[in-house]
Amino acid sequence: MDDFRPLPSRELHADFLEKVVQLLFKTVVFTTRQDKVILWRSPEDLEKQFDFEVRQNGESQEKLLQLLKDTVKYSVKTGHPYFINQLFSGLDPYGLAAQWLTDALNASVYTYEVAPVFTLMEQHIINEVCKMIGPQWSDGIFCPGGSFANGCALNLARFHRYPEIKKKGNKSAPPLAIFASDECHYSIFKFSALLGLGEDNVVTLKANDVGQIIPEDLERKISECIEEGMVPLMVIATMGTTVRGAFDPVNEISVICRKYNMWLHIDAAWGGGLLFSPKYRSKLNGIENADSIVINPHKLLAVPQQCSMLLVKDKKILHECHSRGAEYLFQKDKYYDATYDVGDRYLQCGRKCDVFKFWFMWKAKGAGGFASHIDVLMDLAAYFESQVSLRPEFALVSERQYMNVCFWFLPRYLRSRPNIADYHAQLQKVAPQIKAVMVNHGSVMLNYQPLKSLPNFFRFVSQNSSLTTRDVDFILDHIVEIGNSLFK
Amino acid sequence: MDDFRPLPSRELHADFLEKVVQLLFKTVVFTTRQDKVILWRSPEDLEKQFDFEVRQNGESQEKLLQLLKDTVKYSVKTGHPYFINQLFSGLDPYGLAAQWLTDALNASVYTYEVAPVFTLMEQHIINEVCKMIGPQWSDGIFCPGGSFANGCALNLARFHRYPEIKKKGNKSAPPLAIFASDECHYSIFKFSALLGLGEDNVVTLKANDVGQIIPEDLERKISECIEEGMVPLMVIATMGTTVRGAFDPVNEISVICRKYNMWLHIDAAWGGGLLFSPKYRSKLNGIENADSIVINPHKLLAVPQQCSMLLVKDKKILHECHSRGAEYLFQKDKYYDATYDVGDRYLQCGRKCDVFKFWFMWKAKGAGGFASHIDVLMDLAAYFESQVSLRPEFALVSERQYMNVCFWFLPRYLRSRPNIADYHAQLQKVAPQIKAVMVNHGSVMLNYQPLKSLPNFFRFVSQNSSLTTRDVDFILDHIVEIGNSLFK
Repeated sequence: MDDFRPLPSRELHADFLEKVVQLLFKTVVFTTRQDKVILWRSPEDLEKQFDFEVRQNGESQEKLLQLLKDTVKYSVKTGHPYFINQLFSGLDPYGLAAQWLTDALNASVYTYEVAPVFTLMEQHIINEVCKMIGPQWSDGIFCPGGSFANGCALNLARFHRYPEIKKKGNKSAPPLAIFASDECHYSIFKFSALLGLGEDNVVTLKANDVGQIIPEDLERKISECIEEGMVPLMVIATMGTTVRGAFDPVNEISVICRKYNMWLHIDAAWGGGLLFSPKYRSKLNGIENADSIVINPHKLLAVPQQCSMLLVKDKKILHECHSRGAEYLFQKDKYYDATYDVGDRYLQCGRKCDVFKFWFMWKAKGAGGFASHIDVLMDLAAYFESQVSLRPEFALVSERQYMNVCFWFLPRYLRSRPNIADYHAQLQKVAPQIKAVMVNHGSVMLNYQPLKSLPNFFRFVSQNSSLTTRDVDFILDHIVEIGNSLFK
Repeated sequence: MDDFRPLPSRELHADFLEKVVQLLFKTVVFTTRQDKVILWRSPEDLEKQFDFEVRQNGESQEKLLQLLKDTVKYSVKTGHPYFINQLFSGLDPYGLAAQWLTDALNASVYTYEVAPVFTLMEQHIINEVCKMIGPQWSDGIFCPGGSFANGCALNLARFHRYPEIKKKGNKSAPPLAIFASDECHYSIFKFSALLGLGEDNVVTLKANDVGQIIPEDLERKISECIEEGMVPLMVIATMGTTVRGAFDPVNEISVICRKYNMWLHIDAAWGGGLLFSPKYRSKLNGIENADSIVINPHKLLAVPQQCSMLLVKDKKILHECHSRGAEYLFQKDKYYDATYDVGDRYLQCGRKCDVFKFWFMWKAKGAGGFASHIDVLMDLAAYFESQVSLRPEFALVSERQYMNVCFWFLPRYLRSRPNIADYHAQLQKVAPQIKAVMVNHGSVMLNYQPLKSLPNFFRFVSQNSSLTTRDVDFILDHIVEIGNSLFK
């Protein structure tokens, strides 16, 4: 090994990468309505049809290209307009370009010296989003998903009240209670467990008919907790619940939080993108009264996975709560102002650059572009709801408050007969069977779920502003066609 | 909005994406030794020279391309052979191709239906890596970085011993102690704090002269803890410490763990990749005695950021410890076997697909390719160490145990004079000043750090198997040249 060894070179690899890009253009990036959303294979069949096995020796470039083709072939096209299965969808070409650049630079964002552009960019974007919330806001971090961001918020709330817990553990503080709606995101429970607070110490508040916390109920539960000798630590309010898109009454909740010296965390992972829409911004009124907020640009704003922000009002708390001062990374005798090294304000060490795709889409569309995107989606949801209400084959689960339209397809023998004995059990079976047929066709992926006592219903929710009323008509017609053939 | 709205189309966006790819080929992917690793700008200067500001209106495609060019211009080329600053480096073209595909599919891995290929692929890769560890191993998860993976291991250890903590919190169990070396990764402290266990309840063991845990010391500290009424919960052993690359004596530690009914977690984030090298696999002897192991393929194996695995011996614990059973995602009445929905075994909800780039590099190189990569790097580290030992300008900090070569550059007036009064203070200043010059040149990025009582020293560690002995000579000559000019 006496000579310089060749680095990855244009000669050896550019041709291969070019072919990969052309393959992606042809089969993923520029998907059309005529393509399938999914070519469904059961796990057992896919095991047989795809060459998963890794071996001692490498494969030829031809074989590798074939493997990429197969990967695309059997994967879900989440950018397809009829992928309506989660709180993300659509594929923005500028977001994709930004991801490709991020990957090529393979950056990790913790010190300024290894990620100078992305370090400053994070601060700019955090500042811009904070400005949209209110004048008291200016700090935050990026997280690998909203669940983790919610978990960090629980930790900040705990640290704010009992800073000695960082060193001494939960045992140094009284028993703590967390309050959240029974329609809040399940990460609240997962991370209460992780933090050693215990799932059972999340007091779940029964939401009202449309999925919102009832302030009087919250205050009563807080009083009960205090009587039992617990300290009410925080409330998690949600702006845009996962299933129904409900917005908790955060102004009233914030008054209660102040009264009891509680931290208010707002999980606006799904709803927070409305900051960009002058037309709908008022749905977020009161969000500025929170102590911490989670917003996922990868949801409403259709930024590629993952882009999740945790914003906090207290400018010092992220560093105080998270820092450890590892000297191999955060040297104090640097050749630049080491306060730019943001890494110690995070729980992670190495960290993907998630800001660039958001920043670049913002540059490409402008804030106004995000606003138009949102307005189109809200119009679309309104149209979807109106059609569900008009057509006898469907019933709304509850009034739409946001993008989420929750609805049942009603087989003919169930229409107008909600009092028959096994109505609930019958309805429970409908959505799964329709979904199975849609997936087998590869035509539409539309999520369904039960919710508390409500039997399985569909949730329409799109982040893809390429959809139009004609797409809505197609989806509803398609459900009716399948439903009528399955349930006679 | 009566017509179908156009989706992102070849006409509108393919040309732009093509230009982006060509730009990346030209400026990032196929970097050469003649390029700069970094075009250094202070934070203050970069603020002035880069257009960070986001606005109401979008920019033209020309302006957007210019922004991408600027981003590359001022970013660190982590794939450059002289980026030797962290425990990751190099840019594998197959890893990059895989990332680009993952981005285009924009997948989130939680249910089989939305990520069929990646779900099965994760299980295959976890199985393959487990097989390399030992017959009792077969389960694991992918994590957003080694810190988070270590944090999950702490949680599993706690749950294993006191499962009721998930529901009831830490207060339901006795006070717990965690044991780790004073050279372990700082994430152990950060996540002990997060878990409500408390940083102070991590008992730090003074490592020996080369950075390893001393088993007798561990056992004595465990006894002391028990006497103080604490329960010794777990030991964190490290295979490949961050700074010195030390390997803790895990066989002896595992005997102690069994004796005291303690969980053994091995942080092999950096060292674990040696599983692929028949020549060096024996450095990991005893790893199979752990209860959990973290391995980061994005470190030694040069898989793109991020790819981190947490492996566990107990096949049921991930689900039992992490699950919450959210019905909107993990419906029980699915059209396929829902045990393939792995999401509830994770703390995250939405999750990037990190497996594909690892799988694809494995396909491209074969296990044998990873082995050659490792062998080249070990030879390189050995050569680096030998040169440091031979040359009077340098001194080794401690004997090399792995890839890490820790060394001082000694100004002429400090050579052979370790007993002068301010030797330590003088030496402390050397590395930062040399580094500042290298970064200003843009020639080499090489990390330095103090370690306990040891003044600032350089750490050479590369994951880029394109480097040769000529590169090592260049780097050492370069340091000498700068050092001699700075310290006369």
